[in-house]
Amino acid sequence: MKRGFGSDNHSGTHPQILEALTRVQQDHEPSYGTDAYSETALQIFKEHFGPKAEVFFVFNGTAANVLCLKSLTKSYHSVLCSDVSHINVDECASPENLAHCKLWPLPTSDGKLKLEQLQSAIIRRGDQHFSQMKVISLTQPTEYGTVYQLQELKAIITWAHKEGMKVHIDGARLCNAAVHLNISLQELITDLGVDALSFGGTKNGLAFGEAVVVFDPSLKEDIKYYRKQLGQLPSKSRMLAAQFSAYLTNDLWKKIASHSLNMAQLLLQEASKIPQVKITQATESNVVFAIIPKSWVKALREEHFFYVWDEKTTECRWMTTWDTRPEDIMNFTRKMKELADETSSRPLS
Amino acid sequence: MKRGFGSDNHSGTHPQILEALTRVQQDHEPSYGTDAYSETALQIFKEHFGPKAEVFFVFNGTAANVLCLKSLTKSYHSVLCSDVSHINVDECASPENLAHCKLWPLPTSDGKLKLEQLQSAIIRRGDQHFSQMKVISLTQPTEYGTVYQLQELKAIITWAHKEGMKVHIDGARLCNAAVHLNISLQELITDLGVDALSFGGTKNGLAFGEAVVVFDPSLKEDIKYYRKQLGQLPSKSRMLAAQFSAYLTNDLWKKIASHSLNMAQLLLQEASKIPQVKITQATESNVVFAIIPKSWVKALREEHFFYVWDEKTTECRWMTTWDTRPEDIMNFTRKMKELADETSSRPLS
Amino acid sequence: MKRGFGSDNHSGTHPQILEALTRVQQDHEPSYGTDAYSETALQIFKEHFGPKAEVFFVFNGTAANVLCLKSLTKSYHSVLCSDVSHINVDECASPENLAHCKLWPLPTSDGKLKLEQLQSAIIRRGDQHFSQMKVISLTQPTEYGTVYQLQELKAIITWAHKEGMKVHIDGARLCNAAVHLNISLQELITDLGVDALSFGGTKNGLAFGEAVVVFDPSLKEDIKYYRKQLGQLPSKSRMLAAQFSAYLTNDLWKKIASHSLNMAQLLLQEASKIPQVKITQATESNVVFAIIPKSWVKALREEHFFYVWDEKTTECRWMTTWDTRPEDIMNFTRKMKELADETSSRPLS
Amino acid sequence: MKRGFGSDNHSGTHPQILEALTRVQQDHEPSYGTDAYSETALQIFKEHFGPKAEVFFVFNGTAANVLCLKSLTKSYHSVLCSDVSHINVDECASPENLAHCKLWPLPTSDGKLKLEQLQSAIIRRGDQHFSQMKVISLTQPTEYGTVYQLQELKAIITWAHKEGMKVHIDGARLCNAAVHLNISLQELITDLGVDALSFGGTKNGLAFGEAVVVFDPSLKEDIKYYRKQLGQLPSKSRMLAAQFSAYLTNDLWKKIASHSLNMAQLLLQEASKIPQVKITQATESNVVFAIIPKSWVKALREEHFFYVWDEKTTECRWMTTWDTRPEDIMNFTRKMKELADETSSRPLS
Repeated sequence: MKRGFGSDNHSGTHPQILEALTRVQQDHEPSYGTDAYSETALQIFKEHFGPKAEVFFVFNGTAANVLCLKSLTKSYHSVLCSDVSHINVDECASPENLAHCKLWPLPTSDGKLKLEQLQSAIIRRGDQHFSQMKVISLTQPTEYGTVYQLQELKAIITWAHKEGMKVHIDGARLCNAAVHLNISLQELITDLGVDALSFGGTKNGLAFGEAVVVFDPSLKEDIKYYRKQLGQLPSKSRMLAAQFSAYLTNDLWKKIASHSLNMAQLLLQEASKIPQVKITQATESNVVFAIIPKSWVKALREEHFFYVWDEKTTECRWMTTWDTRPEDIMNFTRKMKELADETSSRPLS
Repeated sequence: MKRGFGSDNHSGTHPQILEALTRVQQDHEPSYGTDAYSETALQIFKEHFGPKAEVFFVFNGTAANVLCLKSLTKSYHSVLCSDVSHINVDECASPENLAHCKLWPLPTSDGKLKLEQLQSAIIRRGDQHFSQMKVISLTQPTEYGTVYQLQELKAIITWAHKEGMKVHIDGARLCNAAVHLNISLQELITDLGVDALSFGGTKNGLAFGEAVVVFDPSLKEDIKYYRKQLGQLPSKSRMLAAQFSAYLTNDLWKKIASHSLNMAQLLLQEASKIPQVKITQATESNVVFAIIPKSWVKALREEHFFYVWDEKTTECRWMTTWDTRPEDIMNFTRKMKELADETSSRPLS
Repeated sequence: MKRGFGSDNHSGTHPQILEALTRVQQDHEPSYGTDAYSETALQIFKEHFGPKAEVFFVFNGTAANVLCLKSLTKSYHSVLCSDVSHINVDECASPENLAHCKLWPLPTSDGKLKLEQLQSAIIRRGDQHFSQMKVISLTQPTEYGTVYQLQELKAIITWAHKEGMKVHIDGARLCNAAVHLNISLQELITDLGVDALSFGGTKNGLAFGEAVVVFDPSLKEDIKYYRKQLGQLPSKSRMLAAQFSAYLTNDLWKKIASHSLNMAQLLLQEASKIPQVKITQATESNVVFAIIPKSWVKALREEHFFYVWDEKTTECRWMTTWDTRPEDIMNFTRKMKELADETSSRPLS
Repeated sequence: MKRGFGSDNHSGTHPQILEALTRVQQDHEPSYGTDAYSETALQIFKEHFGPKAEVFFVFNGTAANVLCLKSLTKSYHSVLCSDVSHINVDECASPENLAHCKLWPLPTSDGKLKLEQLQSAIIRRGDQHFSQMKVISLTQPTEYGTVYQLQELKAIITWAHKEGMKVHIDGARLCNAAVHLNISLQELITDLGVDALSFGGTKNGLAFGEAVVVFDPSLKEDIKYYRKQLGQLPSKSRMLAAQFSAYLTNDLWKKIASHSLNMAQLLLQEASKIPQVKITQATESNVVFAIIPKSWVKALREEHFFYVWDEKTTECRWMTTWDTRPEDIMNFTRKMKELADETSSRPLS
C-alpha cells in the first residue's frame, strides 16, 4: 500500500531496528527475559530512566497499559482518564476486564486533563459504595497530538501524590513528546515521579513491542507474575530486547521522533495555506487534526489513506511516521489544493 | 549461549522465516489484521485446515490457549486437562483469570488423557453448586513428547461431542505430531472435529507468534473482540502473517518438524547406549525424557544446557529444535559416556 | 433511631411480611430453592408477570443488577446507563468486576435516558477496538424519583430490540412506578418486552431480598449457575420466598407503594408552602428532591435524618417509606417553617 | 417436610434467634452496617474473638469464603485446600471467579490436610510461570465432620506463617468444632493466629448470614470495599446483627452445637448396632458418614431425607441440626433395623 497518513503503525520496521533484530538470531539464548540481550536492554533503559527503572517488555500497547493499571490498583479503584483516551475507547474494555479497575473518563477538548478538573473529580473518599479514585492516567502526547508541558505534569503529579494517588503515563509515542519538549526521558518521567509508564515501541519504528517501566521496587514482584498471567511474557525475549536496544542507542529514538515531528510541521504548514482546511488542534507531535470539506474525503483518501476522526464535522487525523517523506506530504497537499480550486471554481447552484 | 537442549524456544528464528519477515517491511500496510499479508496467510491456513478454518494470530502460547478456552466456555464451566498440562502448571493461572473457567486436572503418567478417565470424571451434571465440565483440553504432542494416536483422538472427540462438550488442542508443537503420525494438519485437526486449536509458531522456528484456529463461524465474532480485549491484537499484523505464511509454505513446517524429530531420535539412540541412562517416556516428538545420575547434572549442563524435570528422581528433559546439529548431540552424549566411565571406574569408598 | 427521610432501607420489615417470615420456620425444607415455599412464590410471580417469567431470588440489589447484566452480556459488551444510576455510582464497580461489562454512562438531568440520546450513543458497531453496546439499563423509578412513562419505555425498548440490544430494568422500587402509573407489573414489564428485571424487595418492606425476573428461557440455565457463583444462592430459600409471597399477595405491594407515594405527596405539598424550599424534581415516587438553605441542614437533620444529595447546592433527598407517618412529615415541615421564620426575621447584617 | 438428616440448612431459624430478629424491626436505623445493632454485634464478637477482631457480615457461606480469599490473595496466588472442600467442589468456581485465585486441591481421606502433605505441595517458589501458593484453607470441622486438633492446627499455622503464607478457616460450622474440642472461639481461632475466618450462621440456626472475621487491621480497608463490590453489603444490616448477637449471647451457640453433636452421637450409637451399617468417618461434629446396603436407600429416604454422598459405595451422609429430636433418630434407626431384618431373613435366591 502507498504511504499514507493513517497511523504510525502502518509503517514497517525501521531499518536499523530490523537489522538489530536479524543480528540476534544465532545460537541459543535462555528464554523469558533471562537472556543476555534482555540484560543489555535493561541497562540501556536505566541509562535513560535512571538506575531505579525496572523494565518489563510486553507485546503491545493495550497490554502495557493494562499491566501498569493492574499493578497500581485493587479492584475497588478507579482510574481517571480523558474521555478520548486509548484505555477508554480503543481497548475494548481491556482495563476493566484484565486490570479489574473502573475507568472514570473526564471530558477534554484537547486531550489534556486539567488539574482543576481532576481536583473536582475526586469525590466520595472512603465511601464503600463508590469505587475509589486511585490512579490518574495521562496520555503523553495525547490522542490529539498535544503535549503536556513539564509544569502541567509536575502540578498534577505533585497533587496526585499528596492525595495518595498514583500516576500512569500512556506513552505509546512518548519520545515524540520528549523531543517536542527538548528534554530527556529521565526529565520527562523519572524526575517528575511518574509511577508507571507504558513506553511505546511499535508506533515508533519497532516491528512490535512495548515496555512497562516502573520505579517502585515493590511493584516489581507483582508485575513479574501479572505479565505472565496476562499472556505477555515473550518466550524468545531477545526479539524485543534487541529492538529496544537499537531504538534507544545512538539517539535513534530522537532521530525517529524528530523526523516524524518535522513531517507533521511540514504538513501543518502546507495545509494551513489552503483556506478550506481548518486546523483544530495544536500540532505538537506527529499528527495534524483538521476539518476539511466532506466532498474531498474520497478522492484524498485514494491518494493517501487517513482516518476521518469525526464523521459529523469531517475532522480528519493525518499522522506522520518514521518513513513519511516530504514528497508524500507535498503530493497530499497538492491534491488538496486541486480539490480546493475545483471547489471554489464550482458555480453556486 | 551454546546450543543446548533446554527448550525449542531457546533457538532463534529459522532463516527462511526471518527472511520472510524482513521482506514485508516496505511501505505502508493497514494494521490490525486488515493487511494483504494477513489475507494471504489466512488463505494458506485454509489450504492446510480446510475452507472453514478461521485464524486469529496472537503473540504467544498462553494467549492462544486462553483465547480458545474463553471462546468455548462460560464462567461456570470447567476444563478437563492433564495434571502436567501447560495450562494447569505453566501459565500462572491465566486460564482461570482471563478465560474465567475452572481447570479440572486429571493425573497422567505419559501426559495423555485416557477416554475412560475422562468418562468417569464427568460428574454432577446440572448441579448448580458444581462448575460444569464443558471442555477437554488435550496437548498434542504432550508435555512429555508423547503423541495421541488418531484413533485415541477420535474416540475422545466423538464421545465429548456426544456429551455436549468441546475439544481444545494445545498444539504449541502440533506439526511435530503431524509429522510423527505422517498425516496432514487437516486430518489431525479438522477431520477429527476439533473445536479450537492453539497452533504453535514460536517453538517451531518463528520469532514470535501463535495462531488460534476455529471452525465454528459463531465463535468468530466473539474471538474478534476477545483477542483485542486480551491485549493480543497485533497492530503491525504483517509481522506475524509473513512468518506463518513462510512456515506453512513449501513444506517448511514439515522440514522443521522432521529435523527436530530426527535429532530427538538420534539423541535417544545415543543416550540409550549408556547403561546409567534410563529413558522414561516414549520419544515421539522433539524431546527425550531420561533419568540420569544426579552427580552428572552439573558437568553435563555446563556442556549443553537442559532442565531437570524432576529434582527428586533426576529425570531430565532434553529438547531438540530446528537448529540442533548432530554434532551437538554427539558431543552431549560423548560427555555422558565420559561421566559414565568415570562413575563406573570410581572405586567404592 | 427516630423515623427520618434518609432512605427506604432505614425502616424495618413490614409487619405482614415479618409475620409471613416467622410462619415458615417449622420443620425441614430442602434448601437452595427446591422448597415448597419457593415453588409457591414462583407461581405468585407468574400471576403478576405472566407464565413465562423465571424468577431467581438473590440477597440484595447490587447482586440483582449484576446477575441481570452478567446474563445479558459477554465481556466485550457495554451497558448504556444514566450517569446517576446505582450501577454506575453506588455499587463500587460491581458490574464491571462481576458481570465483566463496561458501563457507558450518559448525562441526565432527571435521571431518565432519552431515546435520541441513546440513539446517538450507539457508535462504532463491529469495531473490534471498541466495547460493543449491548444493553440499556433503565432505573424505574429513577434515582431522582421520576418515572418513565409507558410510551417512553415502549419507544426505547422497541428501538433497542431493533438494534439487537437488550433492556434491563433496575426496579429496586418498581412497585412505586407501577402504582404511580396505575398499571400492573405485567403491563409495566412483560408486555413491554423487558429482557431482565431487578425486582426490589428490601426497599419496599422486606427484611432483605430481591428477585431477578427474566422471560427468555435460554437465560435460565446460565442464571442458575451464575447466581450460585456470585454467592447469591440462598440456602434457606424459604426465608426469601415467604417474604415475597406475602409482598405480592392481597395487594400488599400496592398498599405499601401507595402509602409511600402518598407520604411523598404530603411532604411535597407541605414543603412547597415554604418559599425558601425549591423543589428540583418531579415527585412521582417516594422521594422529594429540594434545595434548602445550607444553614438549615444541621438542625433539620437532628429532627429527622436525611441525605444532602449535592453539597454545593444543598439539594436534599427526602425519602418516604412504608412506615412514614403523616405526623413525621408535619413535624419535619413545621421545623422547616420555624427555620424559615427565623431566617426571614433575621436582620440583614 | 418431615425432619430429616439432609443438611443443617434444612431446618428453620432457632426460636431465640427468630425472636431477636423480630425485636429489631421498630423505627429507623441507618443502613449498611452503621446501625446500633451492628455496633453491639461487633462488641459481642470481640468478646469471643478478642479486641482485634474485625467483623463483616455477609449473606452466605460462599460469599464469606470468597471475601476471605480475595482479601488474602493477589491474582497470581494459589490456595491449597482439600479435594473435598466446599470451595473446591461446591461453590461453582466462585473463588476462582470472584477472588481471582487458583485452587490447588490436595487429596484427603478424612477431609483433613496434613502438614507433611502441605510441605511437599509448596513448589516452584519465585517461578513466574507458576501461580504462587499463598493461602492454606482448612475446613473446621471438615466436610466429613472430622475436627482438626489444636496441635494439628498449631503446627500447620506456625509453618505456614514461617513460609510467608496465610491461613483461612472455612468455619461454616465452627462452633461445633469448638464444642467438640471444649475450647473457646478465641483459643480455636485468635490464639492460633488464623488470618481470616468464615464464621457460619446459617447452618447453626440463623435464618441467613455469615461473618468474615479478620485480625490484621490492614485487611479491614480492603474488605470494606470488596464486600460491597461482591454484592454482600446488607442494607438493613440490623437483620444480620441481631441474629448473630443472639447466637453469641448466653451460650446459645454452645447449646446449639452441643445439641447437634449429641444427636450425631446418638445416631452413631444406634446405627452402630446394625451390622450392615459401616461407619466410615470419625463422628466429631454433627454428621455421621456410613455405608449402607444400596437396597435400603429408597425406603429410608422416604422416612427421613438424607444425601447419598458416594453413589458407588452407597456411603451416606446423615446430618443433625439444632432441631433434630431423639425420636427422629430412633425412628430412623428403627427403620434401618427393620430393613436389616428383612434383608437378613430374605432367602438366598
